[in-house]
Amino acid sequence: MTGWLRIAGLGPGNDTLVTPQVTEALAQATDVIGYFPYVARVAPRDGLTLHASDNRVELDRSRHALELASHGRRVVVVSSGDPGVFAMAAAVFETVEAGPTAWRDLDITVLPGITAMLAAAARAGAPLGHDFCTINLSDNLKPWSLIEKRLRLAAEGDFAMAFYNPRSKSRPEGFEKTLDLLRSTCGNDRLILFARAVSTPKEQLNVTTLGKATPDMADMRTVVIVGSSRTRLIENSRNAMIYTPRFTPE
Amino acid sequence: MTGWLRIAGLGPGNDTLVTPQVTEALAQATDVIGYFPYVARVAPRDGLTLHASDNRVELDRSRHALELASHGRRVVVVSSGDPGVFAMAAAVFETVEAGPTAWRDLDITVLPGITAMLAAAARAGAPLGHDFCTINLSDNLKPWSLIEKRLRLAAEGDFAMAFYNPRSKSRPEGFEKTLDLLRSTCGNDRLILFARAVSTPKEQLNVTTLGKATPDMADMRTVVIVGSSRTRLIENSRNAMIYTPRFTPE
Repeated sequence: MTGWLRIAGLGPGNDTLVTPQVTEALAQATDVIGYFPYVARVAPRDGLTLHASDNRVELDRSRHALELASHGRRVVVVSSGDPGVFAMAAAVFETVEAGPTAWRDLDITVLPGITAMLAAAARAGAPLGHDFCTINLSDNLKPWSLIEKRLRLAAEGDFAMAFYNPRSKSRPEGFEKTLDLLRSTCGNDRLILFARAVSTPKEQLNVTTLGKATPDMADMRTVVIVGSSRTRLIENSRNAMIYTPRFTPE
Repeated sequence: MTGWLRIAGLGPGNDTLVTPQVTEALAQATDVIGYFPYVARVAPRDGLTLHASDNRVELDRSRHALELASHGRRVVVVSSGDPGVFAMAAAVFETVEAGPTAWRDLDITVLPGITAMLAAAARAGAPLGHDFCTINLSDNLKPWSLIEKRLRLAAEGDFAMAFYNPRSKSRPEGFEKTLDLLRSTCGNDRLILFARAVSTPKEQLNVTTLGKATPDMADMRTVVIVGSSRTRLIENSRNAMIYTPRFTPE
Protein backbone atom coordinates (compact mmCIF):
# COMPACT_ATOMS: atom_id res chain seq x y z
CA MET A 1 0.00 0.00 0.00
CA THR A 2 1.33 3.44 -0.93
CA GLY A 3 0.78 5.91 1.85
CA TRP A 4 -0.35 9.46 1.48
CA LEU A 5 -1.14 12.50 3.58
CA ARG A 6 -4.01 14.91 2.97
CA ILE A 7 -4.32 18.07 5.05
CA ALA A 8 -8.03 18.76 4.77
CA GLY A 9 -10.27 21.71 5.64
CA LEU A 10 -13.64 20.87 7.17
CA GLY A 11 -14.97 24.40 6.75
CA PRO A 12 -16.56 26.48 9.52
CA GLY A 13 -18.79 23.79 11.03
CA ASN A 14 -21.76 22.88 8.85
CA ASP A 15 -21.40 19.69 6.82
CA THR A 16 -22.97 21.37 3.77
CA LEU A 17 -19.77 23.44 3.59
CA VAL A 18 -17.40 20.45 3.34
CA THR A 19 -16.18 19.97 -0.24
CA PRO A 20 -16.74 16.62 -1.99
CA GLN A 21 -12.94 16.40 -2.38
CA VAL A 22 -12.54 16.33 1.41
CA THR A 23 -15.42 13.87 1.85
CA GLU A 24 -13.78 11.53 -0.67
CA ALA A 25 -10.39 11.72 1.08
CA LEU A 26 -12.03 10.87 4.40
CA ALA A 27 -13.78 7.89 2.75
CA GLN A 28 -10.42 6.53 1.55
CA ALA A 29 -8.47 7.23 4.74
CA THR A 30 -7.10 4.65 7.15
CA ASP A 31 -6.26 7.31 9.75
CA VAL A 32 -7.70 10.68 10.70
CA ILE A 33 -5.66 12.97 12.93
CA GLY A 34 -6.55 16.29 14.51
CA TYR A 35 -7.77 18.42 17.35
CA PHE A 36 -10.57 16.48 19.06
CA PRO A 37 -13.58 18.68 18.13
CA TYR A 38 -12.62 18.37 14.45
CA VAL A 39 -11.99 14.61 14.60
CA ALA A 40 -15.41 14.30 16.28
CA ARG A 41 -16.97 15.50 13.01
CA VAL A 42 -15.72 12.36 11.19
CA ALA A 43 -18.02 9.33 11.40
CA PRO A 44 -16.31 6.17 12.74
CA ARG A 45 -16.21 3.14 10.44
CA ASP A 46 -14.38 -0.19 10.10
CA GLY A 47 -10.83 0.25 8.87
CA LEU A 48 -10.57 3.87 10.05
CA THR A 49 -8.57 4.86 13.11
CA LEU A 50 -9.39 8.22 14.67
CA HIS A 51 -6.52 9.96 16.47
CA ALA A 52 -7.88 12.93 18.43
CA SER A 53 -5.47 15.17 20.29
CA ASP A 54 -5.56 18.32 22.37
CA ASN A 55 -4.89 21.84 21.16
CA ARG A 56 -1.34 23.23 20.87
CA VAL A 57 0.33 19.94 19.92
CA GLU A 58 0.43 20.74 16.20
CA LEU A 59 4.01 19.56 15.68
CA ASP A 60 3.50 16.24 17.52
CA ARG A 61 0.37 15.67 15.45
CA SER A 62 2.25 16.47 12.24
CA ARG A 63 5.08 14.03 13.08
CA HIS A 64 2.56 11.32 13.87
CA ALA A 65 0.78 11.90 10.54
CA LEU A 66 4.03 11.87 8.55
CA GLU A 67 5.23 8.68 10.27
CA LEU A 68 1.96 6.90 9.52
CA ALA A 69 2.00 8.02 5.86
CA SER A 70 5.62 6.90 5.48
CA HIS A 71 4.52 3.46 6.71
CA GLY A 72 1.95 3.20 3.95
CA ARG A 73 -1.13 4.53 5.75
CA ARG A 74 -3.63 6.86 4.07
CA VAL A 75 -3.76 9.75 6.50
CA VAL A 76 -6.05 12.79 6.66
CA VAL A 77 -5.09 15.60 9.03
CA VAL A 78 -8.27 17.57 9.65
CA SER A 79 -8.46 21.32 10.30
CA SER A 80 -11.46 23.54 10.68
CA GLY A 81 -11.88 26.17 7.97
CA ASP A 82 -9.07 26.09 5.42
CA PRO A 83 -5.92 24.22 6.52
CA GLY A 84 -3.74 26.90 4.89
CA VAL A 85 -5.10 29.83 6.93
CA PHE A 86 -3.81 29.76 10.52
CA ALA A 87 -4.36 26.03 10.70
CA MET A 88 -2.53 22.71 10.26
CA ALA A 89 -0.87 23.00 6.83
CA ALA A 90 2.02 25.27 7.87
CA ALA A 91 2.70 23.05 10.90
CA VAL A 92 2.94 19.94 8.70
CA PHE A 93 5.36 21.63 6.27
CA GLU A 94 7.49 22.89 9.17
CA THR A 95 7.68 19.27 10.34
CA VAL A 96 8.52 18.00 6.84
CA GLU A 97 11.38 20.46 6.53
CA ALA A 98 12.81 19.58 9.95
CA GLY A 99 12.36 15.81 9.49
CA PRO A 100 14.02 12.96 7.56
CA THR A 101 14.70 13.78 3.89
CA ALA A 102 12.44 10.90 2.82
CA TRP A 103 9.42 12.81 4.17
CA ARG A 104 9.87 15.42 1.40
CA ASP A 105 8.98 12.84 -1.23
CA LEU A 106 5.80 11.65 0.44
CA ASP A 107 2.53 12.23 -1.40
CA ILE A 108 1.29 15.27 0.56
CA THR A 109 -1.62 17.42 -0.63
CA VAL A 110 -3.55 20.24 0.99
CA LEU A 111 -7.32 20.12 0.39
CA PRO A 112 -8.75 23.63 0.78
CA GLY A 113 -11.86 24.49 2.77
CA ILE A 114 -14.15 27.42 3.50
CA THR A 115 -12.15 29.54 5.92
CA ALA A 116 -13.89 31.35 8.80
CA MET A 117 -13.50 34.90 7.46
CA LEU A 118 -15.13 34.02 4.15
CA ALA A 119 -17.98 32.13 5.82
CA ALA A 120 -18.51 35.10 8.14
CA ALA A 121 -18.31 37.63 5.31
CA ALA A 122 -20.89 35.65 3.33
CA ARG A 123 -23.34 35.59 6.26
CA ALA A 124 -23.10 39.38 6.66
CA GLY A 125 -23.01 40.44 2.99
CA ALA A 126 -19.71 41.21 1.27
CA PRO A 127 -17.45 43.19 3.64
CA LEU A 128 -14.34 41.64 2.01
CA GLY A 129 -15.47 42.60 -1.50
CA HIS A 130 -12.42 44.80 -1.97
CA ASP A 131 -8.75 44.62 -0.92
CA PHE A 132 -8.27 43.23 2.59
CA CYS A 133 -5.72 42.02 5.15
CA THR A 134 -5.96 38.85 7.20
CA ILE A 135 -4.23 38.98 10.57
CA ASN A 136 -3.94 36.45 13.39
CA LEU A 137 -4.22 38.52 16.59
CA SER A 138 -2.69 35.82 18.80
CA ASP A 139 0.76 36.74 20.10
CA ASN A 140 1.59 33.12 20.94
CA LEU A 141 3.88 32.79 17.93
CA LYS A 142 4.85 36.37 17.09
CA PRO A 143 5.62 39.52 19.06
CA TRP A 144 2.78 41.93 19.84
CA SER A 145 4.86 44.75 18.29
CA LEU A 146 4.55 43.06 14.88
CA ILE A 147 0.76 42.72 15.24
CA GLU A 148 0.53 46.41 16.14
CA LYS A 149 2.72 47.40 13.18
CA ARG A 150 0.58 45.40 10.78
CA LEU A 151 -2.64 46.88 12.18
CA ARG A 152 -1.28 50.40 11.68
CA LEU A 153 -0.19 49.69 8.11
CA ALA A 154 -3.49 48.00 7.26
CA ALA A 155 -5.38 51.03 8.58
CA GLU A 156 -3.09 53.44 6.69
CA GLY A 157 -3.77 51.48 3.47
CA ASP A 158 -7.53 51.59 4.11
CA PHE A 159 -7.73 47.83 3.75
CA ALA A 160 -10.70 45.94 5.16
CA MET A 161 -9.35 43.56 7.83
CA ALA A 162 -10.19 40.08 9.04
CA PHE A 163 -8.91 38.92 12.43
CA TYR A 164 -8.49 35.33 13.58
CA ASN A 165 -8.02 34.33 17.23
CA PRO A 166 -8.99 37.82 18.39
CA ARG A 167 -9.17 37.19 22.12
CA SER A 168 -7.77 34.35 24.17
CA LYS A 169 -8.72 33.65 27.76
CA SER A 170 -5.10 33.82 28.86
CA ARG A 171 -4.32 37.16 27.15
CA PRO A 172 -7.55 39.10 26.65
CA GLU A 173 -5.81 42.51 26.71
CA GLY A 174 -4.55 42.23 23.11
CA PHE A 175 -7.96 42.68 21.59
CA GLU A 176 -8.68 45.71 23.78
CA LYS A 177 -5.45 47.26 22.48
CA THR A 178 -6.49 46.37 18.92
CA LEU A 179 -9.83 48.15 19.28
CA ASP A 180 -8.13 51.23 20.80
CA LEU A 181 -5.60 51.37 17.97
CA LEU A 182 -8.31 50.99 15.32
CA ARG A 183 -10.52 53.67 16.88
CA SER A 184 -7.60 56.12 16.85
CA THR A 185 -6.68 55.35 13.22
CA CYS A 186 -10.06 54.57 11.60
CA GLY A 187 -12.49 56.57 13.76
CA ASN A 188 -15.52 55.56 15.80
CA ASP A 189 -17.92 55.21 12.88
CA ARG A 190 -16.04 52.41 11.10
CA LEU A 191 -18.15 49.25 10.72
CA ILE A 192 -17.10 46.06 12.52
CA LEU A 193 -18.58 42.56 12.38
CA PHE A 194 -18.30 39.96 15.12
CA ALA A 195 -19.16 36.52 13.75
CA ARG A 196 -19.18 33.58 16.16
CA ALA A 197 -19.52 29.87 15.32
CA VAL A 198 -20.70 30.65 11.80
CA SER A 199 -22.86 27.97 10.13
CA THR A 200 -23.45 26.11 13.41
CA PRO A 201 -26.56 26.18 15.65
CA LYS A 202 -24.65 28.58 17.94
CA GLU A 203 -24.03 31.13 15.19
CA GLN A 204 -24.09 34.76 16.35
CA LEU A 205 -23.60 37.80 14.13
CA ASN A 206 -23.18 41.31 15.47
CA VAL A 207 -22.65 44.31 13.19
CA THR A 208 -21.73 47.50 15.01
CA THR A 209 -19.20 50.35 14.88
CA LEU A 210 -15.75 50.67 16.42
CA GLY A 211 -17.19 53.30 18.76
CA LYS A 212 -19.68 50.81 20.17
CA ALA A 213 -17.49 47.69 20.03
CA THR A 214 -16.31 46.20 23.31
CA PRO A 215 -13.64 43.52 23.82
CA ASP A 216 -16.08 41.01 25.28
CA MET A 217 -17.88 40.81 21.92
CA ALA A 218 -15.08 38.46 20.77
CA ASP A 219 -13.70 35.15 21.95
CA MET A 220 -11.57 32.45 20.31
CA ARG A 221 -14.52 31.14 18.28
CA THR A 222 -15.17 34.60 16.83
CA VAL A 223 -13.81 35.98 13.60
CA VAL A 224 -13.80 39.78 13.43
CA ILE A 225 -14.05 41.81 10.24
CA VAL A 226 -13.40 45.56 10.18
CA GLY A 227 -14.55 47.44 7.09
CA SER A 228 -12.55 49.91 5.05
CA SER A 229 -13.63 53.57 4.98
CA ARG A 230 -15.84 52.63 2.00
CA THR A 231 -17.73 49.76 3.68
CA ARG A 232 -21.47 50.40 3.87
CA LEU A 233 -24.41 49.17 5.93
CA ILE A 234 -27.78 48.38 4.32
CA GLU A 235 -30.53 48.36 6.93
CA ASN A 236 -33.72 46.39 6.39
CA SER A 237 -36.33 44.44 8.31
CA ARG A 238 -34.50 41.09 8.12
CA ASN A 239 -30.85 41.38 9.02
CA ALA A 240 -28.22 44.05 8.53
CA MET A 241 -26.08 43.63 5.41
CA ILE A 242 -22.61 45.16 5.09
CA TYR A 243 -20.55 45.31 1.95
CA THR A 244 -17.49 47.01 0.52
CA PRO A 245 -18.12 48.48 -2.93
CA ARG A 246 -15.89 47.49 -5.81
CA PHE A 247 -15.26 51.07 -6.89
CA THR A 248 -12.86 53.49 -5.18
CA PRO A 249 -12.72 57.02 -6.60
CA GLU A 250 -9.51 59.00 -7.18
CA MET B 1 -43.98 31.07 -4.61
CA THR B 2 -41.62 33.10 -2.43
CA GLY B 3 -38.60 34.21 -4.37
CA TRP B 4 -35.06 34.22 -3.16
CA LEU B 5 -31.59 35.11 -4.36
CA ARG B 6 -28.43 33.13 -3.66
CA ILE B 7 -25.04 34.45 -4.70
CA ALA B 8 -23.05 31.26 -4.99
CA GLY B 9 -19.35 30.45 -5.35
CA LEU B 10 -18.49 27.62 -7.75
CA GLY B 11 -14.87 27.41 -6.56
CA PRO B 12 -11.83 27.50 -8.83
CA GLY B 13 -13.08 25.09 -11.51
CA ASN B 14 -13.18 21.48 -10.39
CA ASP B 15 -16.60 20.17 -9.39
CA THR B 16 -15.12 18.36 -6.37
CA LEU B 17 -14.54 21.84 -4.91
CA VAL B 18 -18.19 22.94 -5.09
CA THR B 19 -19.84 22.81 -1.66
CA PRO B 20 -23.01 20.70 -1.17
CA GLN B 21 -24.74 23.94 -0.09
CA VAL B 22 -24.19 25.42 -3.54
CA THR B 23 -25.18 22.18 -5.30
CA GLU B 24 -28.45 22.15 -3.32
CA ALA B 25 -29.23 25.80 -4.19
CA LEU B 26 -28.67 25.06 -7.88
CA ALA B 27 -31.02 22.04 -7.61
CA GLN B 28 -33.78 24.27 -6.20
CA ALA B 29 -33.26 27.21 -8.56
CA THR B 30 -35.60 28.34 -11.30
CA ASP B 31 -32.99 30.74 -12.76
CA VAL B 32 -29.20 30.80 -12.90
CA ILE B 33 -27.48 34.04 -13.85
CA GLY B 34 -23.81 34.78 -14.49
CA TYR B 35 -20.84 35.23 -16.75
CA PHE B 36 -21.16 32.60 -19.50
CA PRO B 37 -18.21 30.31 -18.61
CA TYR B 38 -19.61 29.96 -15.08
CA VAL B 39 -23.20 29.39 -16.22
CA ALA B 40 -21.82 26.73 -18.59
CA ARG B 41 -20.81 24.71 -15.51
CA VAL B 42 -24.49 24.30 -14.50
CA ALA B 43 -26.28 21.33 -16.11
CA PRO B 44 -29.51 22.28 -17.96
CA ARG B 45 -32.74 20.68 -16.72
CA ASP B 46 -36.50 21.17 -17.02
CA GLY B 47 -37.74 24.14 -15.02
CA LEU B 48 -34.36 25.87 -14.96
CA THR B 49 -33.62 28.91 -17.11
CA LEU B 50 -29.94 29.71 -17.68
CA HIS B 51 -29.12 33.39 -18.23
CA ALA B 52 -25.52 33.70 -19.45
CA SER B 53 -24.05 37.15 -20.00
CA ASP B 54 -20.75 38.69 -20.99
CA ASN B 55 -18.09 40.04 -18.67
CA ARG B 56 -18.30 43.58 -17.23
CA VAL B 57 -22.09 43.75 -16.99
CA GLU B 58 -22.17 42.98 -13.27
CA LEU B 59 -24.73 45.65 -12.39
CA ASP B 60 -27.13 44.70 -15.23
CA ARG B 61 -26.86 41.09 -14.14
CA SER B 62 -27.54 42.06 -10.51
CA ARG B 63 -30.65 44.08 -11.44
CA HIS B 64 -31.94 41.18 -13.52
CA ALA B 65 -31.42 38.76 -10.62
CA LEU B 66 -33.14 41.07 -8.11
CA GLU B 67 -36.09 41.65 -10.43
CA LEU B 68 -36.58 37.93 -10.95
CA ALA B 69 -36.35 37.21 -7.20
CA SER B 70 -38.83 39.99 -6.44
CA HIS B 71 -41.26 38.29 -8.86
CA GLY B 72 -41.07 35.05 -6.89
CA ARG B 73 -38.32 33.25 -8.81
CA ARG B 74 -35.59 31.24 -7.06
CA VAL B 75 -32.43 32.77 -8.46
CA VAL B 76 -28.80 31.73 -8.15
CA VAL B 77 -26.13 34.20 -9.30
CA VAL B 78 -23.01 32.15 -9.93
CA SER B 79 -19.43 33.38 -9.44
CA SER B 80 -16.21 31.51 -9.75
CA GLY B 81 -14.25 31.12 -6.52
CA ASP B 82 -15.93 32.85 -3.58
CA PRO B 83 -18.59 35.42 -4.52
CA GLY B 84 -17.38 37.74 -1.73
CA VAL B 85 -13.80 38.06 -3.02
CA PHE B 86 -13.61 40.30 -6.11
CA ALA B 87 -16.73 38.67 -7.52
CA MET B 88 -20.49 39.13 -7.76
CA ALA B 89 -21.58 39.66 -4.13
CA ALA B 90 -20.45 43.29 -3.82
CA ALA B 91 -22.08 44.12 -7.17
CA VAL B 92 -25.41 42.68 -6.01
CA PHE B 93 -25.34 44.66 -2.74
CA GLU B 94 -24.44 47.87 -4.60
CA THR B 95 -27.52 47.25 -6.75
CA VAL B 96 -29.71 46.52 -3.73
CA GLU B 97 -28.67 49.78 -2.08
CA ALA B 98 -29.31 51.82 -5.24
CA GLY B 99 -32.60 50.08 -6.06
CA PRO B 100 -36.20 50.09 -4.77
CA THR B 101 -36.50 49.85 -0.97
CA ALA B 102 -38.42 46.58 -1.33
CA TRP B 103 -35.27 44.87 -2.61
CA ARG B 104 -33.68 45.25 0.85
CA ASP B 105 -36.20 42.84 2.32
CA LEU B 106 -35.70 40.11 -0.26
CA ASP B 107 -34.28 36.80 0.95
CA ILE B 108 -30.67 37.25 -0.20
CA THR B 109 -27.87 34.95 0.96
CA VAL B 110 -24.24 34.61 -0.09
CA LEU B 111 -23.01 31.00 -0.35
CA PRO B 112 -19.23 30.95 0.05
CA GLY B 113 -16.84 29.03 -2.18
CA ILE B 114 -13.16 28.12 -2.45
CA THR B 115 -11.53 31.33 -3.64
CA ALA B 116 -8.63 31.21 -6.12
CA MET B 117 -5.88 32.29 -3.71
CA LEU B 118 -6.71 29.52 -1.24
CA ALA B 119 -6.97 26.88 -3.97
CA ALA B 120 -3.61 28.06 -5.33
CA ALA B 121 -2.01 28.17 -1.88
CA ALA B 122 -3.19 24.62 -1.19
CA ARG B 123 -1.69 23.30 -4.43
CA ALA B 124 1.69 24.83 -3.60
CA GLY B 125 1.85 24.13 0.15
CA ALA B 126 0.91 26.82 2.67
CA PRO B 127 2.30 30.20 1.53
CA LEU B 128 -0.62 32.01 3.23
CA GLY B 129 -0.05 30.22 6.54
CA HIS B 130 0.64 33.52 8.29
CA ASP B 131 -0.72 37.10 8.01
CA PHE B 132 -1.42 38.14 4.42
CA CYS B 133 -2.98 40.83 2.22
CA THR B 134 -5.31 40.23 -0.72
CA ILE B 135 -5.16 42.86 -3.45
CA ASN B 136 -6.95 43.17 -6.79
CA LEU B 137 -4.32 44.54 -9.19
CA SER B 138 -6.87 45.75 -11.76
CA ASP B 139 -7.11 49.53 -11.96
CA ASN B 140 -10.51 49.38 -13.66
CA LEU B 141 -12.31 50.42 -10.48
CA LYS B 142 -9.65 52.17 -8.43
CA PRO B 143 -6.71 54.46 -9.14
CA TRP B 144 -3.29 52.91 -9.71
CA SER B 145 -1.87 55.20 -6.98
CA LEU B 146 -3.99 53.33 -4.39
CA ILE B 147 -2.75 49.94 -5.61
CA GLU B 148 0.84 51.17 -5.37
CA LYS B 149 0.27 52.56 -1.87
CA ARG B 150 -1.20 49.26 -0.69
CA LEU B 151 1.66 47.26 -2.21
CA ARG B 152 4.21 49.45 -0.38
CA LEU B 153 2.40 49.13 2.94
CA ALA B 154 1.98 45.36 2.53
CA ALA B 155 5.71 45.04 1.84
CA GLU B 156 6.58 47.26 4.81
CA GLY B 157 4.41 45.07 7.05
CA ASP B 158 6.10 41.91 5.71
CA PHE B 159 2.73 40.42 4.86
CA ALA B 160 2.49 37.61 2.34
CA MET B 161 0.38 38.88 -0.57
CA ALA B 162 -2.17 37.38 -2.93
CA PHE B 163 -3.00 39.19 -6.16
CA TYR B 164 -6.16 38.79 -8.24
CA ASN B 165 -6.47 40.01 -11.85
CA PRO B 166 -2.72 40.59 -12.07
CA ARG B 167 -2.45 41.38 -15.76
CA SER B 168 -5.10 42.35 -18.25
CA LYS B 169 -4.58 42.35 -22.00
CA SER B 170 -5.60 46.00 -22.23
CA ARG B 171 -3.28 47.24 -19.45
CA PRO B 172 -0.39 44.79 -19.06
CA GLU B 173 2.02 47.45 -17.72
CA GLY B 174 0.51 47.42 -14.20
CA PHE B 175 1.92 44.01 -13.35
CA GLU B 176 5.38 45.01 -14.60
CA LYS B 177 5.25 48.01 -12.25
CA THR B 178 4.11 45.70 -9.44
CA LEU B 179 7.08 43.37 -9.92
CA ASP B 180 9.49 46.35 -10.04
CA LEU B 181 8.05 47.80 -6.85
CA LEU B 182 8.21 44.45 -5.04
CA ARG B 183 11.78 43.78 -6.14
CA SER B 184 12.84 47.17 -4.76
CA THR B 185 11.05 46.64 -1.42
CA CYS B 186 11.31 42.86 -0.85
CA GLY B 187 14.50 41.98 -2.76
CA ASN B 188 15.19 39.57 -5.61
CA ASP B 189 15.20 36.41 -3.48
CA ARG B 190 11.60 36.67 -2.31
CA LEU B 191 9.49 33.64 -3.34
CA ILE B 192 6.61 34.13 -5.77
CA LEU B 193 3.99 31.64 -7.01
CA PHE B 194 2.13 31.91 -10.30
CA ALA B 195 -0.92 29.62 -10.26
CA ARG B 196 -3.04 29.42 -13.38
CA ALA B 197 -6.43 27.68 -13.82
CA VAL B 198 -6.00 25.78 -10.55
CA SER B 199 -7.92 22.48 -10.25
CA THR B 200 -8.67 22.37 -14.00
CA PRO B 201 -6.95 20.28 -16.71
CA LYS B 202 -5.05 23.45 -17.70
CA GLU B 203 -3.57 23.98 -14.24
CA GLN B 204 -0.04 25.41 -14.23
CA LEU B 205 2.03 26.15 -11.14
CA ASN B 206 5.30 28.05 -11.22
CA VAL B 207 7.31 28.79 -8.07
CA THR B 208 10.20 31.17 -8.61
CA THR B 209 11.75 34.31 -7.10
CA LEU B 210 11.04 37.99 -7.71
CA GLY B 211 14.45 38.23 -9.39
CA LYS B 212 13.46 35.62 -11.96
CA ALA B 213 9.79 36.58 -12.33
CA THR B 214 8.67 38.17 -15.60
CA PRO B 215 5.34 39.86 -16.34
CA ASP B 216 4.33 37.32 -18.97
CA MET B 217 4.15 34.62 -16.27
CA ALA B 218 0.71 36.04 -15.34
CA ASP B 219 -2.56 36.59 -17.17
CA MET B 220 -6.14 37.16 -16.01
CA ARG B 221 -6.61 33.47 -15.16
CA THR B 222 -3.55 33.54 -12.87
CA VAL B 223 -3.51 34.21 -9.17
CA VAL B 224 -0.14 35.37 -7.85
CA ILE B 225 1.13 34.82 -4.32
CA VAL B 226 4.23 36.57 -2.98
CA GLY B 227 5.72 35.19 0.22
CA SER B 228 6.74 37.15 3.29
CA SER B 229 10.42 37.33 4.24
CA ARG B 230 9.84 34.13 6.27
CA THR B 231 8.34 32.04 3.44
CA ARG B 232 10.39 28.93 2.68
CA LEU B 233 10.86 26.53 -0.22
CA ILE B 234 11.11 22.77 0.35
CA GLU B 235 12.69 21.09 -2.66
CA ASN B 236 12.06 17.45 -3.43
CA SER B 237 11.74 15.04 -6.34
CA ARG B 238 7.98 15.56 -6.81
CA ASN B 239 7.00 19.22 -6.80
CA ALA B 240 8.27 22.28 -4.98
CA MET B 241 6.41 23.13 -1.76
CA ILE B 242 6.38 26.62 -0.29
CA TYR B 243 5.07 27.57 3.11
CA THR B 244 5.10 30.43 5.58
CA PRO B 245 5.95 29.27 9.11
CA ARG B 246 3.60 30.09 11.95
CA PHE B 247 6.34 31.45 14.18
CA THR B 248 7.95 34.89 13.81
CA PRO B 249 10.78 35.72 16.22
CA GLU B 250 11.20 39.04 18.03
